[in-house]
Amino acid sequence: MQAFLITFCISAMDLECASQETVKQGLLARGWPPFKGFSKHVKTKVLEFFSHLIKLGQDDPRRVVHSLKAGLALTLVSLFYYYQPLYKSFGVSAMWAVITVVVVFEFSVGATLGKGVNRGLATLLAGGLAVGAHQLANLSGRIGEPIVLGIFVFLQAAVSTFVRFCPQIKARYDYGLLIFILTFSLISISGFRDDEVLELVHKRLLTVLIGGSTCVIISVLVFPVWAGQDLHNLIASNMEKLGIFLEGFGDEYFKMTEDGKSKEDRPFLQGYKGVLDSKTNEDALANFARWEPRHGRFQFRHPWKQYLKIGALTRKCAYRIESLNGHLYADIQAKREIRSKIQETCTTMSMESGKALKELSMAIKTMVKPFAADIHIENSKSSVKNLDTLLKSGLWDDETDLLEVVPVATVASLLIDVVTCTAEIAESVNELATMLKFEVVEPTVSPEKPETGQPKIGIS
Amino acid sequence: MQAFLITFCISAMDLECASQETVKQGLLARGWPPFKGFSKHVKTKVLEFFSHLIKLGQDDPRRVVHSLKAGLALTLVSLFYYYQPLYKSFGVSAMWAVITVVVVFEFSVGATLGKGVNRGLATLLAGGLAVGAHQLANLSGRIGEPIVLGIFVFLQAAVSTFVRFCPQIKARYDYGLLIFILTFSLISISGFRDDEVLELVHKRLLTVLIGGSTCVIISVLVFPVWAGQDLHNLIASNMEKLGIFLEGFGDEYFKMTEDGKSKEDRPFLQGYKGVLDSKTNEDALANFARWEPRHGRFQFRHPWKQYLKIGALTRKCAYRIESLNGHLYADIQAKREIRSKIQETCTTMSMESGKALKELSMAIKTMVKPFAADIHIENSKSSVKNLDTLLKSGLWDDETDLLEVVPVATVASLLIDVVTCTAEIAESVNELATMLKFEVVEPTVSPEKPETGQPKIGIS
Repeated sequence: MQAFLITFCISAMDLECASQETVKQGLLARGWPPFKGFSKHVKTKVLEFFSHLIKLGQDDPRRVVHSLKAGLALTLVSLFYYYQPLYKSFGVSAMWAVITVVVVFEFSVGATLGKGVNRGLATLLAGGLAVGAHQLANLSGRIGEPIVLGIFVFLQAAVSTFVRFCPQIKARYDYGLLIFILTFSLISISGFRDDEVLELVHKRLLTVLIGGSTCVIISVLVFPVWAGQDLHNLIASNMEKLGIFLEGFGDEYFKMTEDGKSKEDRPFLQGYKGVLDSKTNEDALANFARWEPRHGRFQFRHPWKQYLKIGALTRKCAYRIESLNGHLYADIQAKREIRSKIQETCTTMSMESGKALKELSMAIKTMVKPFAADIHIENSKSSVKNLDTLLKSGLWDDETDLLEVVPVATVASLLIDVVTCTAEIAESVNELATMLKFEVVEPTVSPEKPETGQPKIGIS
Repeated sequence: MQAFLITFCISAMDLECASQETVKQGLLARGWPPFKGFSKHVKTKVLEFFSHLIKLGQDDPRRVVHSLKAGLALTLVSLFYYYQPLYKSFGVSAMWAVITVVVVFEFSVGATLGKGVNRGLATLLAGGLAVGAHQLANLSGRIGEPIVLGIFVFLQAAVSTFVRFCPQIKARYDYGLLIFILTFSLISISGFRDDEVLELVHKRLLTVLIGGSTCVIISVLVFPVWAGQDLHNLIASNMEKLGIFLEGFGDEYFKMTEDGKSKEDRPFLQGYKGVLDSKTNEDALANFARWEPRHGRFQFRHPWKQYLKIGALTRKCAYRIESLNGHLYADIQAKREIRSKIQETCTTMSMESGKALKELSMAIKTMVKPFAADIHIENSKSSVKNLDTLLKSGLWDDETDLLEVVPVATVASLLIDVVTCTAEIAESVNELATMLKFEVVEPTVSPEKPETGQPKIGIS
């Protein structure tokens, strides 16, 4: 719809440019200034919209490919109408194949497969039941028939609609239930006028299968987009975003009074914000991924639940980081000398947790067992211990204002939480590595050893 | 689908119960124990599913009503098939009315209206353009026609599919674009076999209008569910959940060592968790609400954006509370004597913020100007100031271990953040109150006055 409006606007704009001189002598330029303003406004809006579309394509070129694939699938299915022998066997029912392609073709293979299977099975089941309903209704005579059919339609629509509210069913079979209601109603109602109900069911099922399989085949064969791969990448990149924040946080917090730069100048410190609201996206991708067959390094029964678990822990860590971020640019900051006393340990905690998260993210991305992450986590835990020792040793002199200690103590405490969260994330990534038998690769450069000689220190 | 399976299972179960004695003497009881286990497992699962469905209905009885409404709409529209004069004018096209009802009828008025308007307008526009495409294709002869039609179908499908990726368009017009692709393809392809394209468009448009308006009329007249009202209630109840946590937090944190109760015994302290992931739900409700006409206290152009703003601030506060909650049951707690020194101020901060949030929630619910919220916020701000004074006065003696001060300092600091967040929420609720001209009602009981004599104290 918009596309055509825009094409129209753009042609209008081209015309305007081409014949600017002519228009200048015309009515609009002479006597109707408001139109000029309006036209300029529309032009700006249309150009904005176009640059937005171009950016969408540049951000993820798979979107452009998907659009072309959708066009291709639809054009292929429309051959049924053009090619006489095919048209002869299906007639107007071939329309169902076109409808199926339009509604089933989705961005990822999993979503397309899920919708296709839902549509196919629901059509089969509803068709069968509708034939039964038609036979039963037939027994009740010409006057009783519409009443019995009406009762059937009402009951199945009400019950199926109610079942759609069940969250577990909604997640995987919502579309199937919709198609069940649709097909049952259509077939049983059509049966009232047309006694060839079985043929109707047969044609409908066949066209739905043709449309559905066209979608699935194109979706799988032409530059496939796997929801599983997307979920895999999303989980890894979310972890990386937190890692980037944590790596930058120490320097930013302890040196921040030196330059007057605000948070707008530090986009890497804002990347984590997207992680806070990632739950819906992750859940949807996991639902699609469950439909996908084995592809690349992903099996059919890949442990998607474990990905969701890692995602939830990553979000938990992101909530702590959101609190930390609030302290980064708070109005009241502790004095420089107070901060400087714990600067080293806090920076190490933050930096090492960040490195661990980036390492874990890379481990997921490459499906190689995380090698250095444990060492980074141990380093961060040692820093927690060092901080404890520092605090116990009476770090501040007696005159230190406790009020000024509070912000620093909070930052330190939140960082300790972050270290705990990171350790939890590492644990669940290790579980995933065991489940999927991640490759073991010896790194070429060995990371720093823990600062204390003790490799395993509990967070205290 | 499930519904029928379940009906089947239940009938099977009833049969089993009725003829238990007979079965006991049968094959299953005698020689096939695995079947007994399986049957028991299925029975348990089916009963679980049923009790789950009953709970869904009890939690929100509007779901039951909605299911009955959906059945009613579908049965009404199916009259087209049964009633001879109506069937005469539409014929098989009446099927489109049935399809429209199944796919357009949604839970809330806004969602139904949005889908209905999208479907109607998209059918109109696509029908018009498809007729144009058909005329153009006609000019290119019998062989050229399918090629030209194919190019048109491919281009519009590809462009429209790509435009659907635009987030702003996806939010409001996604369904319209889908129907645009569907109708344009169907009409232009059908045109190849059937020259009565205009009649086809006319019939399709009319049946879609009949189906759509049936949905909208039933949705609005029979126990309407307004998405706007739902958003309004959701925002208010989210705020209330945070309020409940904060009211209970102080007592829980400062007295927690006395009894051994864990967090599972305190469900009121877990209610806030739902707020963390509420963004998707709020956005969807706001999108639906924008389609809704004036109803009750909500106008057509109600400031839904302001609700989303309040929702975002509430979530920000919930992130802080999530960090606070982590400290509630942390392994390491500060000593009782250390905590007791700031117990009073911290409890007041938490309690007063909680009261303010509950007051603001109530203000939104009843659309009455929040009266006491400002006083509660001032009280909480005074407590922040009191805390500052306490800390400055050298609260702890020199031997106090700084390590033990850190957890308490963190809780205090997070509570200060919560007070700030609460003040921000109050401000945006006041903005909403001004926009919507909330009623001013003098309360019967006056709340406590701020502890210090100064009514306006900035958070320090």
